[in-house]
Parts: sequence; C-alpha cells; structure tokens
Amino acid sequence: MYKEIRLAGTGGQGLILAGVILAEAVGVYEGKKVIQTQSYGPEARGGASRTDVIISDTDILYPKARHLDILACLSQKSYDSYINDLKEGGIVIYDTFYVQATAANKGYGLPLAIRTRERFGREIFMNIVLLGALAEITGIVKIESLKKAVANHVPKVTLEHNLKALELGSEIGRGK
Amino acid sequence: MYKEIRLAGTGGQGLILAGVILAEAVGVYEGKKVIQTQSYGPEARGGASRTDVIISDTDILYPKARHLDILACLSQKSYDSYINDLKEGGIVIYDTFYVQATAANKGYGLPLAIRTRERFGREIFMNIVLLGALAEITGIVKIESLKKAVANHVPKVTLEHNLKALELGSEIGRGK
Repeated sequence: MYKEIRLAGTGGQGLILAGVILAEAVGVYEGKKVIQTQSYGPEARGGASRTDVIISDTDILYPKARHLDILACLSQKSYDSYINDLKEGGIVIYDTFYVQATAANKGYGLPLAIRTRERFGREIFMNIVLLGALAEITGIVKIESLKKAVANHVPKVTLEHNLKALELGSEIGRGK
Repeated sequence: MYKEIRLAGTGGQGLILAGVILAEAVGVYEGKKVIQTQSYGPEARGGASRTDVIISDTDILYPKARHLDILACLSQKSYDSYINDLKEGGIVIYDTFYVQATAANKGYGLPLAIRTRERFGREIFMNIVLLGALAEITGIVKIESLKKAVANHVPKVTLEHNLKALELGSEIGRGK
C-alpha cells in the first residue's frame, strides 16, 4: 500500500493542522509509515496553503508527492493548481461553496463550508470536517484514529467541538 | 544559503507545532524556500517526536535532511539518536533538565524546561521558548517573523502567553 494525499486551500483554513492530524492518526495509531510535508515558497505569500501526506506499508524513499491518489481542495485556486497532479483513478474531494469542478473527473463535491457554518456558526472547524469526510470516502484512515490524533493537537476547550466536527464530516462523507 | 534544522524530543512537547511555526516564519515572512517534514514510523509509537525544517534561498530538490546544521533536543533519547547527524561545525541546542550532553561538541545547554516552569507553572510553552532561544543563537529566523507565525497557529486565548514564551526564549538565548 502506497498513497499520496494532498490537502490544499488558503491560509487560515487549518489544512496544515489537518495534515499533522491525518499523518499522526495513520502513522502512530495505525502503524503505517507516514511522511507529511509542507512547502513554503512564493505561492505561500499569495495565501495558498498545502500539505502532502504520503502513507506506505514500507519505508518511503522519495518523500515528494508526484502522482496524487487523493486530492482535497478548499479553494478554487488549489483545485485549478493541483487537479492535474491527480493520477488516473485518483479521488478528488472539494468543497462546493469554494470550488467549481471543471475536470472530467467530477469527484466528490461536498457541502463542507455550508454544513460547518450551519453547525458551528463559522468555518473554523472545516479542516476537521474535511478529515471526517475524507476518512469515510477513501477509507485511508479510521475515524477512531483521527479522534485520538485530534485530541493530541487541539486545545482541550475545543476538543468536544472538534470531535463533533469529525462526526459531521463522517456524516457528509456517507452522504447524510 | 541552505540550512537543515531538526527539532526533536517526545510527543506532547509540541515540537511539530514548533516546526510548523518556524517553517512559516521563514517561508512566508522572510521569503525563503522552506520544506518542513515529519515522519511517523515505529519510533513514533515509542513516544519520540521529530520535525525537520530545510531552509534555502533556492528550490529544495531533495527534501530529506541528511547533514544537520542545527539540532535542538528536548529529550535524552532524541539527543542520543541524532547527535551524529549533526554536521561538523553544526549547532546543537538542548535542554539541560532532560539532556546530558555527551558529544565532543558541547553546544548550547539551556535551562528551557526549568525557566518555562518558573514562568508559566508548567512546560506547556517550552516549544515556543525553544524557538525564541534558537532564533537568538542561530540567527536563522527573526523573532518578529516568529511572532507573526505564532499568531496564525495558536488559539487566541493563549496568544499572549505564547508571545511571552518567545520573549523568554529570546532572553535565554542571549544568556539572560
């Protein structure tokens, strides 16, 4: 098993934290080898944010993602920038409020922003909602592992909300 | 300019967050190319935590750290594991409560844990104190850039404490 996953959007959407949580969930609680990377360059100054997570059963020799198995986009710019990095048969997940899909691969358009705002009054937990949906759709990680990793990385006062965000994402991923 | 930096210790010390903050400070606010990586494998299940940050003026072609310019250790195990990855003339920074230095390169032994506990009653901000000290000792990043990146990644209610932690680290780094 070898999977390349990219989470992309704008700064402030918490995607790097989402990547840290996903990597720890799979790496620590599911015993896989995982490398998680974020790069900063000129594009970061334009407000773009992106993290790559590579998951494997064996040692990861080349830590750069080149042919994405899974791409999740929370901004149009990130969708436009990375959709061509998705390999044939890869899964693209995107938020229907922020992204209009143009590729032949329609993927999974999900109402992440709208449902997050309905539930929490703002989009602050959308990164965690995304993880719940991604887990259900791709099967790449268990919700239980995400819960443990979330608990390690969010302030205690927001833990309950974050766990509810995971559940909301799980519901959205199951089409509810 | 090309620098490889590793922050290492145990899970719960917040070193991955420290790596995210350092990478963003240099990459977004100082215009450098930066790749930040964390790996999870069997060693992560032993409670070890580590993040690598590579900083360069030009594109980073090979994103794995191989010859560390700067190594910061908050546990004896991380010191023992990685001290030999430090290149000749490299800088090692370690906490004097958790680490007993054994290498010929004595580096900078700093009272990070003790001073953090004195100031905040617990070690929760030691990761940020470390960043302040590292900035002063190595000059790899400006305190002002760290302050901006900290503000993007910590909860608002803890921001003031985190900024004080940066200042405390800066004092410790300047030998005060």
